[in-house]
Amino acid sequence: MGKENQFVKEIADIETDFPQWYTDVVLKTKLVDYGPVKGTMVIRPYGYAIWENIQREMDARFKAAGVENAYFPLLIPMSFMTKEAEHVEGFAPEVAVVTHAGGAKLEEPLVIRPTSETIIGHMMGKWVESWRDLPLRLNQWCNVMRWEKTTRPFLRTSEFLWQEGHSVYATGEAAEEETLRMLALYREFAETVLCMPVLTGRKTEKEKFAGAVATYGMEAMMHDGKSLQSGTTHYMGQNFAKAFSIQYTGKEGALEYGYTMSYGVSTRLIGAIIMTHGDARGLILPPPVAPVQVIIVPIAMKKEGVLDAANALKEELKAAGIRAQVDDTDNSPGWKYNEWEMKGVPLRIELGPRDIEAGKFVAVRRDETEKTEYERADAVKTVQTLLGLMKKSLFARAQQRMQSRTVTAGSLDELLQGVDGGNFVRAGWCGDRACEDKVKEFAQATARVIDENHTETTCICCGKPAKHTVFFARAY
Amino acid sequence: MGKENQFVKEIADIETDFPQWYTDVVLKTKLVDYGPVKGTMVIRPYGYAIWENIQREMDARFKAAGVENAYFPLLIPMSFMTKEAEHVEGFAPEVAVVTHAGGAKLEEPLVIRPTSETIIGHMMGKWVESWRDLPLRLNQWCNVMRWEKTTRPFLRTSEFLWQEGHSVYATGEAAEEETLRMLALYREFAETVLCMPVLTGRKTEKEKFAGAVATYGMEAMMHDGKSLQSGTTHYMGQNFAKAFSIQYTGKEGALEYGYTMSYGVSTRLIGAIIMTHGDARGLILPPPVAPVQVIIVPIAMKKEGVLDAANALKEELKAAGIRAQVDDTDNSPGWKYNEWEMKGVPLRIELGPRDIEAGKFVAVRRDETEKTEYERADAVKTVQTLLGLMKKSLFARAQQRMQSRTVTAGSLDELLQGVDGGNFVRAGWCGDRACEDKVKEFAQATARVIDENHTETTCICCGKPAKHTVFFARAY
Repeated sequence: MGKENQFVKEIADIETDFPQWYTDVVLKTKLVDYGPVKGTMVIRPYGYAIWENIQREMDARFKAAGVENAYFPLLIPMSFMTKEAEHVEGFAPEVAVVTHAGGAKLEEPLVIRPTSETIIGHMMGKWVESWRDLPLRLNQWCNVMRWEKTTRPFLRTSEFLWQEGHSVYATGEAAEEETLRMLALYREFAETVLCMPVLTGRKTEKEKFAGAVATYGMEAMMHDGKSLQSGTTHYMGQNFAKAFSIQYTGKEGALEYGYTMSYGVSTRLIGAIIMTHGDARGLILPPPVAPVQVIIVPIAMKKEGVLDAANALKEELKAAGIRAQVDDTDNSPGWKYNEWEMKGVPLRIELGPRDIEAGKFVAVRRDETEKTEYERADAVKTVQTLLGLMKKSLFARAQQRMQSRTVTAGSLDELLQGVDGGNFVRAGWCGDRACEDKVKEFAQATARVIDENHTETTCICCGKPAKHTVFFARAY
Repeated sequence: MGKENQFVKEIADIETDFPQWYTDVVLKTKLVDYGPVKGTMVIRPYGYAIWENIQREMDARFKAAGVENAYFPLLIPMSFMTKEAEHVEGFAPEVAVVTHAGGAKLEEPLVIRPTSETIIGHMMGKWVESWRDLPLRLNQWCNVMRWEKTTRPFLRTSEFLWQEGHSVYATGEAAEEETLRMLALYREFAETVLCMPVLTGRKTEKEKFAGAVATYGMEAMMHDGKSLQSGTTHYMGQNFAKAFSIQYTGKEGALEYGYTMSYGVSTRLIGAIIMTHGDARGLILPPPVAPVQVIIVPIAMKKEGVLDAANALKEELKAAGIRAQVDDTDNSPGWKYNEWEMKGVPLRIELGPRDIEAGKFVAVRRDETEKTEYERADAVKTVQTLLGLMKKSLFARAQQRMQSRTVTAGSLDELLQGVDGGNFVRAGWCGDRACEDKVKEFAQATARVIDENHTETTCICCGKPAKHTVFFARAY
């Protein structure tokens, strides 16, 4: 059994050293590698294929919603950044700056986009003339850069890939509606594609986007009970419209400023998948985004007909749109089981001479351990059913964890105890920044989102009447 | 008729002022806009949708060929650039340099990738250990930056989007084969997806990629008879393998350097489409990449049932996978005809009360002028047939132009006359750089590719025996 357990031994224990488990898993499954510049990552084919699946699913939703893709330049004049006061304060400290190009010093330094509100605002100011041009709803898939001090692959890297949607509307109501509509789109995506339950809600002033009137977030509970911000949408009011002269002539002929909003998710979602579903043996990938959904391991591979039967099954599954692969390497079946388990492939099929003769195959879901025999003739239907069941099961398990690990606290001590135990903690809050800061200092926990279901009556910190009930948690 | 001709009047004459025609067309059809930083472009939704179609078609070909996508960092340490002597000489003058990030000066300046041989070479050196790891065939879709002095949207911009494929093989033969295989893939793509005939062949030493052993190019003839380099593949030998220690242990246990190659096409292909197929009225988009393949213009739109009939037809076409749209704006039909002609939509359908009553519709191909009546019941089949015919016809027309405008010259004067007349000129060449330089000086023409069909016996310049027959042309 020594060889069979080799992979598992190479991964740190998920319960006692989750950070090391994460690093081991992302590197050993070849999702990612460290780039040569500090804080950068290389997304390897197995990781990039997950991103492509995320992109395809998300992009289809944007297109169905009527959003159009475009591409805006990487480099932003430094002067653009300073046009919105809060925005520059938030992003200036972490931008990378181009000072030289084409062998000469630039007249004005250029920043590599940390986000594109400014340059897109500038272009929208050029394009929008009349109320007929509104709403204007654009999205881009691109790389962005934020110079971070402590980095971890997928979770926080100086460069990452994302989509950023930017819309301008004639009225504030319409722009706010879009902000909530996109939050709902993200939530539906997280639940059905990533099998990941989330909390969604408004962020506090302290946690909002630099330059926004209001930010809404999607938070997911990771294996260790910490929260990962997995997507945000921002209502900007007229802040950027005024900074970049996004003005339109209304139906009555008056010149008006538009109202803008933006929204984004990034390669961080890959980190969310890993830390939501993974277990002691490695990754567990949700079927909708798994690069390989079914791995077929031939047993007694050298025996006549076995490999052919495995390949025939693979082709049948692929023809039905299932991402199937045969492991025909020289490794032992046990080695293959461990490798593909670590890589999180949702379904393993074992196919040996006896199965073939009996018209059967054996399948094991990655989130279970028992092997079950099925009729070969029903392979496509069976695989589709098993992948569907696994999808539901992954979601239910994660939801069960989040629900059982969400507590309500009546005091700072209870809150501390709650987050120490890896819980999301609901608590009343008066709305003052000072109390929010004190919670952070006392419990190293931050306000993740405001709970729409406002039940608490007193602030956990100062005891004054609570304006909001807030979900507090330690966060990535 | 005044309003109907408004668009055409706004576009410069294609025959007498082709550069201005190009600028007018790309801006007025909203393919692109100028970015705020000199030399940058914003790709607007109509242009980006073409790029998405190119990506989808090309990416499917890469995946079918077994190439995997990945993503490498944007920023490359300056020291990497200098590891391959020719490479740094070629690219150093046009890189953009990040000197500051996160509020501090960097210890080592970082360049924004002009191309990624160096950083991918570095990672491949880390990943490749044994012959079992080879071949390693990766591709990335990304942005790159080359600081250019004179720029034009799509054709030459400081930032552009592209794919860059990079492979490492155990032998030089295998890497060279891949270099030619990818050139053939590009050619098939150009011919069938872009309806664009191309010359393919090896580049001269002068024209090859900085750091390559051999570069192969795909050249297309534009409307004005000039050539546009539309894709290149490069065989690197061991140049980059040695610079970045891409070494593997062979089957016999010896440590060997790998052989690398790379290949790329970019958003320049959008420029190629525009300048290959466009006419006096604007764009003509090849059906496989057109964002809108069929525009339906309702006639007497306010009459009961007309708009419903147009929408029903659209849905029927969309269900068959055809990108169809209804123009239900308040503009006149004549205005709509001109607008969608300028935007190059392959097929226009006119649908009015009489057509609906008679069970007919009228269609006009963008590359023709006559309107034809068809049976409404056969709409899907008819549209598919018309789009297929148009595809063939666009290719044939462009091929006819390239063939009729390719001449063979026996003297420098003939060569000059040839390129002045907007031709590709075949001529003998001794192989000396001095003669190549002289042709450039004398005729402002460059060696596009070497003709595999070597027919000429003397060098057009020095009269010595010709080593090669070369296609010379003025080029973008």
